[in-house]
Parts: sequence; structure tokens; C-alpha cells
Amino acid sequence: MNGAESLVHTLLGSGVDTCFANPGTSEMHFVAALDRIPGMRCVLGLFEGVVTGAADGYARMAGKPAATLLHCGPGLANGLANLHNARRAGSPVVNIVGDQATYHRPLDAPLTADTEGWARGVSAWVRTATGAASVGADAAVAVQAARTPPGQVATLILPADTAWTEGGVVAAPLPVPAAPQAAPSQIETAAAVLRRGGPVVLLLGGEALSQAGLAVAHRIAAQTGARLMAEGFNKRIARGQGRVAVERVPYVVEEAIQALAGTGHLILAGSRKPVTFFAYPGKPGTSVPTDCEVVVLARPEQDVVAALAQLADALSAPPAAVPDNGERPEAGRGALTPESVAATVAALMPEGTVIVDESISFGRGFFAATKAAPPHDWLALTGGAIGDGLPLATGAALGAPGRRVITLQADGSAMYTLQALWTQAREALDVTTVVFANRKYAILLAELASVGANPGRTALDMMDLGNPDLGWTKLAAGMGVEAARAETCERFADLLGQSVTLRGPFLIELVL
Amino acid sequence: MNGAESLVHTLLGSGVDTCFANPGTSEMHFVAALDRIPGMRCVLGLFEGVVTGAADGYARMAGKPAATLLHCGPGLANGLANLHNARRAGSPVVNIVGDQATYHRPLDAPLTADTEGWARGVSAWVRTATGAASVGADAAVAVQAARTPPGQVATLILPADTAWTEGGVVAAPLPVPAAPQAAPSQIETAAAVLRRGGPVVLLLGGEALSQAGLAVAHRIAAQTGARLMAEGFNKRIARGQGRVAVERVPYVVEEAIQALAGTGHLILAGSRKPVTFFAYPGKPGTSVPTDCEVVVLARPEQDVVAALAQLADALSAPPAAVPDNGERPEAGRGALTPESVAATVAALMPEGTVIVDESISFGRGFFAATKAAPPHDWLALTGGAIGDGLPLATGAALGAPGRRVITLQADGSAMYTLQALWTQAREALDVTTVVFANRKYAILLAELASVGANPGRTALDMMDLGNPDLGWTKLAAGMGVEAARAETCERFADLLGQSVTLRGPFLIELVL
Repeated sequence: MNGAESLVHTLLGSGVDTCFANPGTSEMHFVAALDRIPGMRCVLGLFEGVVTGAADGYARMAGKPAATLLHCGPGLANGLANLHNARRAGSPVVNIVGDQATYHRPLDAPLTADTEGWARGVSAWVRTATGAASVGADAAVAVQAARTPPGQVATLILPADTAWTEGGVVAAPLPVPAAPQAAPSQIETAAAVLRRGGPVVLLLGGEALSQAGLAVAHRIAAQTGARLMAEGFNKRIARGQGRVAVERVPYVVEEAIQALAGTGHLILAGSRKPVTFFAYPGKPGTSVPTDCEVVVLARPEQDVVAALAQLADALSAPPAAVPDNGERPEAGRGALTPESVAATVAALMPEGTVIVDESISFGRGFFAATKAAPPHDWLALTGGAIGDGLPLATGAALGAPGRRVITLQADGSAMYTLQALWTQAREALDVTTVVFANRKYAILLAELASVGANPGRTALDMMDLGNPDLGWTKLAAGMGVEAARAETCERFADLLGQSVTLRGPFLIELVL
Repeated sequence: MNGAESLVHTLLGSGVDTCFANPGTSEMHFVAALDRIPGMRCVLGLFEGVVTGAADGYARMAGKPAATLLHCGPGLANGLANLHNARRAGSPVVNIVGDQATYHRPLDAPLTADTEGWARGVSAWVRTATGAASVGADAAVAVQAARTPPGQVATLILPADTAWTEGGVVAAPLPVPAAPQAAPSQIETAAAVLRRGGPVVLLLGGEALSQAGLAVAHRIAAQTGARLMAEGFNKRIARGQGRVAVERVPYVVEEAIQALAGTGHLILAGSRKPVTFFAYPGKPGTSVPTDCEVVVLARPEQDVVAALAQLADALSAPPAAVPDNGERPEAGRGALTPESVAATVAALMPEGTVIVDESISFGRGFFAATKAAPPHDWLALTGGAIGDGLPLATGAALGAPGRRVITLQADGSAMYTLQALWTQAREALDVTTVVFANRKYAILLAELASVGANPGRTALDMMDLGNPDLGWTKLAAGMGVEAARAETCERFADLLGQSVTLRGPFLIELVL
């Protein structure tokens, strides 16, 4: 058995059975091992950003890591932006990067790069394998590192000779680390705050946004009057009827400040203290009022659902029924506006839908509209590195088979990783992509205005995607994905309604 | 004047008047400054790999750096692979990365990343601006660092507040560093080797492959019988009638060994000792014979053309006419084979064409066919990080206005950075892209065979781009580039011949 074979066996034994791959020459022995050893589902991406974003989406839905397979430092580099998003999501990823043979590296062949250096910025764990005999053990530790709460990127760099040399040893799976429990003092401090009364926000993140986490948070809110909120950009939120509806902290600084105004105490439950995405001259870097006290019930890596349950018990909060979220919206009519599009999505999504939201500026209000839709999950761009939506949807579809994925996708961001559509076609994934073709970097026009600049020709040109127009139906067709355009809400509803009943991917270009 | 304005003024004063950009929020003040200060040509790319590859192509043709404009660590990350190629080419690039405001960085907002850490792997010079007053001086040093021979990537990280704060100071341009002269001992050692006779290869790299460098190298070869060769993958080679034709060191290990077999002395003239792209079990890591002595006439950063001239003088080599390169090939006929395609390109390219070669496996023999074509330049993938061709061509067209660019482009590699086609359409660049649609990672099939593996279903699936087929005419049309398919050489000749007479981009999909 060579090192590569021991690696594949160890991954499978450790529960990693899906590999998103864009291999190169130095990975050929790993690929050959995948051939010989059954059990690993291999999914090809035509660009590494697709591979890493898909691994993130898979992990968010499957609740366990996939492996990636990347080629040398530059292949890793192409995948870094979506690994950055995965890191911010707390998604487990076993990131495998093939590289130059150990003895070839000193010759500095053209593809040689500082692979470890590039990996560190996104990885909680980085190791370069040193020999075939230890690759199996390395892989078992990598899986354990990836599964360390809340979920981490673990990067194993695999020099080609550690893969091809005989003497591989399969390693037994290592225990999956449990999330540490919050300390009694954390529970008690939060309970004291809530007992005192006054305006309290319980800010939920991570597993607190699961159906179970939301339900227990609701017990606390019902008992104490605390307000529940979610972080602005989350790994996954359970949403729709039967789930407790929460608002998210808004992106726009003024709106975020408004949303948290008057909060006396902010209790962090698996979340982090809100900060603004960017600094702006003369504006604060956080939306938390200066006189607000911040208390940590559970850090992101701690068991937040247990902490919430302990807190509810400490407060003697009785069971509380999940409120009815009201009437499901009807599909919109007429012009394609943020409101009409949101209503249409909420009206037509099937139960169990996975929403992938990279709608950026056009879709800021979409989330609110879906609280009365059937139960679904909402996945967001967590790290702000755009180009996550299409890959995330690709992986989510593989991590949640049988469920429809609807990607709410800004056009500018979609262009970063449009190659994901090809993988969706190849794997016949049930993904409906809705592209918001406003043909500009609308967010930047708003940002430019907010820094007080009056855009001239040069600036406008750098935010204009309309010369030439991107033809999304052609781009999709070029990658084997059926597509159509809509200029009215009725047409959008027709296309969306059809697409969710068919198998395989479909793309709808909304001409805004 | 704010920091951003001082930066733009300093760049312009230092001769940097082209900026390839994919800006974000933290760059809005830089964008606003570009609006107010005339003189900078701004070119938008829809993905950062397009931006950095275009900066490389521009530098190769213009002989001076362009600026990039990238957004935060993840934006830089998306551009790293083509910066890696630029680094390997020795291309000057002034890489500007906007980032979080200095005081906002500690809050670890979602887009915050280790921008400096990621920049180091590709940059000879990295600096994070610390205040508006020094940004101008930083920019002047960055340009000087970029222009330090043979050409380097210089990365200036620009926290948003150093751009927006008043108090910017324009810095005077700094001297462009001259390439150091080779030491007399380097000239004398090479001369002694050549005077002794025996099988000598003069391996040319960098400026030695300019028309002037080749001519003086030919003087030496004509006088001594030394054989001229070029490195395998070069920044730019002057090629065609009137230029001395040289062979390149082959990619395939066995062919490279064969090409250098029997060489007693290898003289490096602006080149590096050949190493194989990858290690293979049981194969050597270099194609240089074990008993061959390697001598350095000029290191890549030294003035190799002057060193060659001094060497020629030391050898009393008389002027030598550039040999006639023979008959220009006729356009091929019938099936699309590597030979017929190469002949067609050689037959139809206009004088002054810039060839961008990312043809990978299908195009290994193309270079040989063009020695008798009209004078042209040949730009190659220098760092092995695929996805360079379309961006490189985009930048080359901007760096060499009035000349036709012909991109010889493998399909698998094209998919990494296909967004470049949109920039070609937007800027109406005279680029003909020829996509070799073999619908597989052909190089990997060969590599898999060469490691002795017999590919099975899983492996074949990971090298197959044919399920579904990529539709290149649709992809091009989706980005505003006119396109057509050819299945015969006659049709290819028609399309190529037409495209080079028209303005603007065109894409030809060769169905192989």
C-alpha cells in the first residue's frame, strides 16, 4: 500500500466520503488510489474556488467535512477566498494540497511556491506530510482538526513522493471532539442579566440558529422579554414555519446601529460582538451602543444549544410554543423589485429548500420575506469574499440530497466562480440559480456615495457591468445548464415554479 | 490632498499610467481619486486572476509596470496564481491591495485576513502603508521595487484610512535601477569554456531572448559552434523572420534529457539551470547530464545582453547575419492536428503578432512551426499556474496597441479565468483566442500514464471535460465576444484570417 492509498482508506474510515477535486500532476497517485479504493464520491470542479466553496456548502448541510484535492501552491491560492469564507462560517474542511516531491522542492521548479505560508491564513491546522508511513496518521489528525468545534479548515500538504512511496499505514479514526461546555459562570452571568430585566438582546450564532437552538432561545425570550437576533451573515439558519423567526443584524452601518439602539445588555450565544464590515470616516466600528454591556453565554466553539438550555432552566423558563409566522406571501406581480422577488421566492419554494444567499445589495430584504415560507435553511456569505454562492450551492446540493437548492445570486459576484454551473450540470444537481442582473456593482455605487464621493466617468466605469451586458442564459448554456430570462415577476414565478419540480440545475436571469 | 490622491499622482509621475482593477469598498477613495486626477487608464476585470494576469501581459509588452487594484486579502488571494506566473516571468507589477482601515483591523471584521502573509509568496517587496503622509513615498518605492531587474512584484497594502485621510504628499519618481553588469570573471569563465570547444549549450533566458539578445548570442554561436537554446517557458521570445530561431528545453522529461544529452558545458545566459516541472519516481529532477559543467554568464537579474556582447567581443566573434528561417508554412488542410493548426497559425499571423501560448499538451509543437512566420513575439505560461492565457492576452493587447494578439489556449486552462473575455470585449481589444477543445485534461491523462497508473472510471472522470461539453461560442457570446467553431483546418484558416483583419476580439473554438 502506498501513501496515497493509506490516505484514502484513512479518510473513508474517518467518515470523509466526498472529495471535491481539481487535481494536477502531483496528485496523480492520489487519483489512482481513488480509482482502486471504492467509496469516495469524487466531484470535479473546473476552478479551485468552486472546489473549496463546494466543500463549505457540503459541510454546512452534511454536518461533516468533505475533502478537497488541490494542486500545488497556486491551486491552493485559487481556493483561498472560499476557504476564507469557510473559516468564517466555522465549516469543517479537510483540505488536501498535492505538492512537489520532498526532494524536488529545493530545485524550485516553476510551480513551487510557499504552500504552507498560503495555507496558514485560512487553516486552524496545517501539516506537510513527511513520508508515506505517516500520511495515514496525518489524515486522521486532519479530520479530527477539521471537526474540532465549531468546525475548522485543516490543510494537509501532500508531497508527491509521500503519496507514491510504498509503506502506507491506515490510521484508525480519531474521536470527534465534542464542543466544550460553557462554564457555570457564563450561564449564571447571563441569567443574572436577564433576571435584572431591561433591554437585552440575545445574539445568536452557529448552532444557536438550528431549529433546536432557536426553540430554546425562544423559551428564554418568552420568559424574559429579551429580544432574539442573529448575526448578520450565518453558516446556516433554520427558517420558515415551525421555526422561530429572528432578525439579522443589518449590513448597513446606520441600520445596524438603529437595530441595536437602546440595548442595555448584549448576550453572545455562539456569536461574536457585531462589528461593521468596513470602517467609514467618522462612523463607529461597531453597532453596539457604547453603554451596552456585552456578556458571553457561549463562545462560537462552545456548545451553545446546551448553554441556552441551561440558561432557560436557570431562568425556570417553561416550554414555549413556536409562534405562527403568519401567512405565506403570494407570488409578486409586475415589475421585478426586491419585494416582489422576495415574495415570489417565499411563495414558491418547496419544503426543505436550501437557500444560498449571495444576493448582496439587491437581496438585503429577502430574508425577512421567508419567515412564513415552508421550513427551509438559509446559507449566507460569511466572510465577505464574493464568488461563494454558486460553489456553495453546488456543495449544499451534494450535502443535502433530495432537497432543492435555490441560489439568490448577484451578477457581479456570480462571475467570480461561474464555473460551478458546469459541476451542477455534470452532477445533475437540483439547483435553481436566480441571477440578479442589475449589471453593476451596485454595492460599490452605494459605498462610493457613503464615502461622500461624487462618481465620475472613471469610477462609474469600474462599477458598470453593462458594457457589454453579460448574457447569463448563454453562459449557463455554455456549461450545460438550461436557462431562461425573466423581465416580469409573473415570468419569474413561472420559471421558478417549474424549475423546482424538475430534476437537475436551472438558471433564471432576472433582468433588473 | 488625501493619501489616495497622492498615490495616484505619484504613480503617474513614476510612469505607471495603466491600472487593472477589481475594486471593493475599501478602495473607494482610490477610485474617487482616479476620477479626479486624469491620466490613468483604468481597466476593469471581473475576477482578480484576470487583473493580475493582465498586469503581467501588459508588463511583458510595454516593458514597464501597470498597477493593479485588488480588494482585501481574499481579493489578493484570487490574484495570487497569476502573480506567481508574473514572478516567474520576472514581470514588473505594482500590486495595490486596499484593506481594512488601520484602526478597524483589530476588530477582525469578516473580510479581514492576513493580507501581508499572502502577498509575501509572490512579492519581492511588501509594505503596508501606515499613514496618508507617507503613501506617496511608499508608492514611489513600490514602483522602483517593481522595476528592479529582472522585474518584480511589489505589493503595497493600502488601509482605507491611509487613502482617505488628508495630508498626502506626492513623491518624486525614484531612479529605475539598472541591471547589474556581469562580473568580468563571469565573462572570462564563459569565454574559456567556449574557447576550449566541445559540446556547449548557451541557454538563453530573459532579455537574451529579445531580438538584440538573440542576435549577439548568434554571433557567439557562429564563432564557436555552441548551440543556442531557450528555457522551456519564457516571458517573451522574439521570433520569426529576421530573428535567430532557437529551440526551447522540452517539457517532457525524456525529451528534455534527449535535447541536452552530450552537453559538456551549459552556459546560463539570463536563465536558470533546467529542472523538471515535477518529480517522477525513478527519473532525474534535471535534464542536465550529470557530467555537464554549468557556468553562469549572467544571472536573471544581470544585464545579459551586455554580457553576451562582452562575451562575443572576448571571443573576437565577427558580426553574423541572422540566418534565413526558411519558407513560411502554408495553412494546413483537413483534420485539426497539432501540425496542421501550427502551420495555419504560422501561415496567417500578421507581422507584429503577439502569441500568447497556454496551449499545454496540444500545442507543444506549435513553437517550432513559427520560426519562418513574420516577426512576432511569443509569450508563455512561466509559472505553471494555469489560467494565465486569456488574462495575459488581455494585458498584452493593452501593452502593445496596434498589434494583433493570438492566444493559443487549452480549454481546461481557459476555464480558470474565462472572465477575461469580457474585458477584451469591453476594451475592444484586438485579440483572437483559439481554444483547443479536446474536452479533457489531456496533460493529466499523459501524466497518469507516466506514473504507471491504469486509469479507471474515477480517474477518467476527473480528467474529462466532456460531460457536459463546454460550449465556447456560447461562453464567448455571453461575455460579448464574437465566436465561431471550426472542425476542419480550412474553416479554421478562414476564421483566423478574417479575425486578424477585424478590430476587436474574436474566439475560435477548435473542436478536436
